[in-house]
Amino acid sequence: MAAERPLVESLAGDAEIAAHFSAAAELSAMLHFEAALALAQGALGIVPAGAAGTIAEAAAGLSADIAAIGLGMARDGVPIPALVAELRAACGQDAAAFVHRGATSQDVVDSGLMLRLKRVLSLIDGRVAALLDILRAIEADQAGTPLMAQTRMQAALPFTVADKLTTWRLPLESHRVRFRALATGLPIQLGGPIGDGASFGRDYPALRADLARRLDLRDAPPWHSDRTPILDVAHALALLTGSLAKVGQDVALMAQTRVHAVELAGGGGSSAMAHKRNPIGAEVLVSLGRLNAGLLGTLSQSMIHENERSGAAWTLEWLVLPQMAEAAGSACQLATALLSGARFAPPGGSSQ
Amino acid sequence: MAAERPLVESLAGDAEIAAHFSAAAELSAMLHFEAALALAQGALGIVPAGAAGTIAEAAAGLSADIAAIGLGMARDGVPIPALVAELRAACGQDAAAFVHRGATSQDVVDSGLMLRLKRVLSLIDGRVAALLDILRAIEADQAGTPLMAQTRMQAALPFTVADKLTTWRLPLESHRVRFRALATGLPIQLGGPIGDGASFGRDYPALRADLARRLDLRDAPPWHSDRTPILDVAHALALLTGSLAKVGQDVALMAQTRVHAVELAGGGGSSAMAHKRNPIGAEVLVSLGRLNAGLLGTLSQSMIHENERSGAAWTLEWLVLPQMAEAAGSACQLATALLSGARFAPPGGSSQ
Amino acid sequence: MAAERPLVESLAGDAEIAAHFSAAAELSAMLHFEAALALAQGALGIVPAGAAGTIAEAAAGLSADIAAIGLGMARDGVPIPALVAELRAACGQDAAAFVHRGATSQDVVDSGLMLRLKRVLSLIDGRVAALLDILRAIEADQAGTPLMAQTRMQAALPFTVADKLTTWRLPLESHRVRFRALATGLPIQLGGPIGDGASFGRDYPALRADLARRLDLRDAPPWHSDRTPILDVAHALALLTGSLAKVGQDVALMAQTRVHAVELAGGGGSSAMAHKRNPIGAEVLVSLGRLNAGLLGTLSQSMIHENERSGAAWTLEWLVLPQMAEAAGSACQLATALLSGARFAPPGGSSQ
Amino acid sequence: MAAERPLVESLAGDAEIAAHFSAAAELSAMLHFEAALALAQGALGIVPAGAAGTIAEAAAGLSADIAAIGLGMARDGVPIPALVAELRAACGQDAAAFVHRGATSQDVVDSGLMLRLKRVLSLIDGRVAALLDILRAIEADQAGTPLMAQTRMQAALPFTVADKLTTWRLPLESHRVRFRALATGLPIQLGGPIGDGASFGRDYPALRADLARRLDLRDAPPWHSDRTPILDVAHALALLTGSLAKVGQDVALMAQTRVHAVELAGGGGSSAMAHKRNPIGAEVLVSLGRLNAGLLGTLSQSMIHENERSGAAWTLEWLVLPQMAEAAGSACQLATALLSGARFAPPGGSSQ
Repeated sequence: MAAERPLVESLAGDAEIAAHFSAAAELSAMLHFEAALALAQGALGIVPAGAAGTIAEAAAGLSADIAAIGLGMARDGVPIPALVAELRAACGQDAAAFVHRGATSQDVVDSGLMLRLKRVLSLIDGRVAALLDILRAIEADQAGTPLMAQTRMQAALPFTVADKLTTWRLPLESHRVRFRALATGLPIQLGGPIGDGASFGRDYPALRADLARRLDLRDAPPWHSDRTPILDVAHALALLTGSLAKVGQDVALMAQTRVHAVELAGGGGSSAMAHKRNPIGAEVLVSLGRLNAGLLGTLSQSMIHENERSGAAWTLEWLVLPQMAEAAGSACQLATALLSGARFAPPGGSSQ
Repeated sequence: MAAERPLVESLAGDAEIAAHFSAAAELSAMLHFEAALALAQGALGIVPAGAAGTIAEAAAGLSADIAAIGLGMARDGVPIPALVAELRAACGQDAAAFVHRGATSQDVVDSGLMLRLKRVLSLIDGRVAALLDILRAIEADQAGTPLMAQTRMQAALPFTVADKLTTWRLPLESHRVRFRALATGLPIQLGGPIGDGASFGRDYPALRADLARRLDLRDAPPWHSDRTPILDVAHALALLTGSLAKVGQDVALMAQTRVHAVELAGGGGSSAMAHKRNPIGAEVLVSLGRLNAGLLGTLSQSMIHENERSGAAWTLEWLVLPQMAEAAGSACQLATALLSGARFAPPGGSSQ
Repeated sequence: MAAERPLVESLAGDAEIAAHFSAAAELSAMLHFEAALALAQGALGIVPAGAAGTIAEAAAGLSADIAAIGLGMARDGVPIPALVAELRAACGQDAAAFVHRGATSQDVVDSGLMLRLKRVLSLIDGRVAALLDILRAIEADQAGTPLMAQTRMQAALPFTVADKLTTWRLPLESHRVRFRALATGLPIQLGGPIGDGASFGRDYPALRADLARRLDLRDAPPWHSDRTPILDVAHALALLTGSLAKVGQDVALMAQTRVHAVELAGGGGSSAMAHKRNPIGAEVLVSLGRLNAGLLGTLSQSMIHENERSGAAWTLEWLVLPQMAEAAGSACQLATALLSGARFAPPGGSSQ
Repeated sequence: MAAERPLVESLAGDAEIAAHFSAAAELSAMLHFEAALALAQGALGIVPAGAAGTIAEAAAGLSADIAAIGLGMARDGVPIPALVAELRAACGQDAAAFVHRGATSQDVVDSGLMLRLKRVLSLIDGRVAALLDILRAIEADQAGTPLMAQTRMQAALPFTVADKLTTWRLPLESHRVRFRALATGLPIQLGGPIGDGASFGRDYPALRADLARRLDLRDAPPWHSDRTPILDVAHALALLTGSLAKVGQDVALMAQTRVHAVELAGGGGSSAMAHKRNPIGAEVLVSLGRLNAGLLGTLSQSMIHENERSGAAWTLEWLVLPQMAEAAGSACQLATALLSGARFAPPGGSSQ
């Protein structure tokens, strides 16, 4: 918890996810792209092999001047002109001219994002897997324990812990399928200044395919003005956060004093009422679900990406997508902690 | 244009899509479900074959009392108790007891919605196909015509009409793939009062599979409290409307007086400035895109579906999804009309 | 309940509010504006007194051809060119030239909306007043009845029905103050084609003041590209719907089977579980609150109103604001019905 | 620019505003509240005068252990139990029992937020004032310079720089009135555990009035479950950001290559097209406007604040409101920089 960050981060933040959206991670992914581009162009003979190697080595070793990049970002709206200048300086005069050859900022920024999203999706998928293990452990222990199903906020009919867990488990399993499909299909962005590939010359198709292979991204035509890939990721994040918020809402309802259908470990203390054990994690899951639902709608406005590149729509993505990923990651952690310490239909409780 | 409806419907509404969300269409789909359920239960011997036939016939012939159903809806929050009462009365005493056997309102409402969405998705897919034909016709005619690409609201580099059309066409083609996959995979809802299938007895799996087959829906476990199928449809609708809004925004920018990179047929008249030809269709595409982006975020709140059935979250879906479908349908029509009358780089215009 | 409208309207719609957003009401308000404009111009000598009288009389008597207006709307993006043509025809040749003198569509559409919003705000304010009467009646009857306060979904400390009602009453009272201030301050829109008033000549300030007086609107400079007045109304509607959704959420939580801190009259029936009494009205209040919250965010996008008139942003308002008003009106009716039949801390219930 | 923060912060962030939402600022405001509460209780004789002085001194001098507070926040959902424990330890045994007397976490958190919002609103108001000075300077210089008004994305009629500036200036002036009224009316939160004031004893009204005076906040009944004050601030922030986004959108449209109705100083460089000068600030204004519009809708969901305190709704506020304030602050800075370097109707440009 840093003094200059808001306290709510210690409750609802996720430093591990956030790290993938840090300037350091952004620049690292961008440099990885520039290196791979040079190597791919070297392999095709578009760039001298020596220069390609020099660029790749310089990119791998570059410790970017983050303050300078920040100034460049503020001036240019993208960090690439400043970053390319640093990379060129690091390459020496002979190779400098071959840095970023044919590419535009969007190629680097969007492909760099895809490289990071790949890790983020994998990270979140692993967390959902861990959460599913916990659900299975609860089921192994309490499957047949009776609970009262609730419809429209009223007691309906008796069912079991296994039935309840099934309603939590199935959507998470289907989200995992989605996350893995997305991670496998994240597309490279390579189109040059106006997204038609012309700046890369006649080898463009081969270059794009080879670069995609090197970056372990899907070869795909430019999507510079079609932001569907961004929205697909955001949709998946909102679905996951929504499903976990549903779990949180269920738990908060089941943990109500008079209902007492679940007992939670820990529970938040109150500054005024010593007897209280508040279902903090359950509540924050709901907050994160509502946040990501709303952010999805906000991000969707960026589909209206005017012309061949919209700074307005693009910047909006940068402001919204990272917090959606962080909220989804945090929700996984909160749900895992919440359910790890949950016991259904506790003694002295009610099945209703 | 009915006097009791808002004028904006004549500009941005879509009566053909709206018809699939009318009380008449809702009731028709619900009765179709009740008929198929009875027949499937008859085939499995859960319901006497004669009664099943009687129910199916009565459902096919029933002209529901819409005023009475509306009153029932206002009282019960769902139309099913009132509708089932009418259907039972129409069946006669012997078959009445077998109507709606084991089912709950959500089975009928959600499955009925899926039946209608299937048609809506197909309708919209057909419209996108027609729009793609127009794009191809323009390309056949003007592929090589030069235009000026615009990035970040500034002239960038020259490209061609074909390049511009590619950026409009590719997302629409990918949305068509999505729409068809969705239409094929729309799931049946059958779970009974608390979504565990118990009310249908031990034949539940066979019944669900057979009913899905009869309704031409995908056999799937109950999703009563996991609204991913609804959100997937909404996401697809928002993507489409977003892509068409991007086309509208592009056209409005290209049609600007000083830019004049496209000439539109018609154009809206002004009550004050006789010289003006306003790009109405292009603007309304943007409005519909922003509307559906926002509605997607609003609808996403309904993922937080508390317990085994949330009236609050479910009703929110009914208030939002139909207008998203109507907006998407209307956007297809507007885009088709807009581009049918468009000519790029008109004489006397500018390539910039 | 009309067969061509969705069933959900019988649950969550409000025909009385919707009527103020019908084509008939829109045209009536627009004609009222055109009449008042002519009379104000007549009084200032800008238009011959005889022509002004003729126009006012024709406007009052005109039964617009709604189908034709709808076609005009679809063509021009606004109904005014078609409506003005009808009004001119009705006036006869001499007066025709003085119809809509100096005005632009936006003057008529926006001022016409303000005239209707005035009635809508007053209607809703009256409904909130009626709801407050019910709260006071409950308080007179049950003020001291003990209840258990709930914080963070846990029993906190005992308080009374009066304490609970206070938390519902205070926001409604403050919203009433807001609604009345808004109704009093709704601004006239009069600016001519580009919003600078030049088309009305040197008498523009006097004309605007006189016209505002005739329309009982606030004299104000043109707000053609500053949509704050629209957003202020939307904000008030969302606040009201939010406060009523909070009441609905509270009632649904208090009406839970095990909590039973309130007993509701009626209650929705279930098609599958005869014992259930579902708190339908409470749930729909929550749906409407979530709807209006989301719609407020969507409508806020229309603040980004490009240049001197944005068809895209303006049309978005027409698609969103009416449903926000209808949701607010409906929420008032639902809350009134819900609380009229509510009894707190019923015998056999729990104070928790 | 810190390596662990996203690059977009250097483009669209506002460190000065963000500082008011840091843990350090939060804790400082909370301790200020605890000190004032003790002093007010001391003045009323509820707390011994010596203990009150000791508490106030300890609070003023306390350097909270932020890591420990963060752990407490994660455990309790609020920082208050951990903070109060630290303050008690710092006070010594005699005064410890009088710390936080009668208060609950929400009193401290909400009142602390109001204290910080007061400064934030004043800061933003000052920035808008500075921006208005720039608009007036431009007007002094170029008032009569002709421009072409644009309606519905088409050239309409000629007007002047003064006319254009008026449409930007009026909403900003009205927002200033709003910001100052809000800042003056920010309410104290003081209600105790369940918001009825009972924990403060019979002196509650006098205590609340005195504490409000000491904190320079408005004396007001508890609004623990009525979040209107939060939404009013958010609405004002969204209006401001919307109006500035409108300015940004206008500038971006006017700065288009073929339109060239404004010339901007600087302009962002491109990594691929050396001739380009991108209107970065104008675009980011639009991004921030769309962000805050969407966030307003998301935050509005928190009006549905269940029961006497909703952790879910409250936490959502903490996740959304700070970024809205930061976006508004950043928009002011961007608009100021953008317009400081703008020249309308530049030589060689077009009046259209």
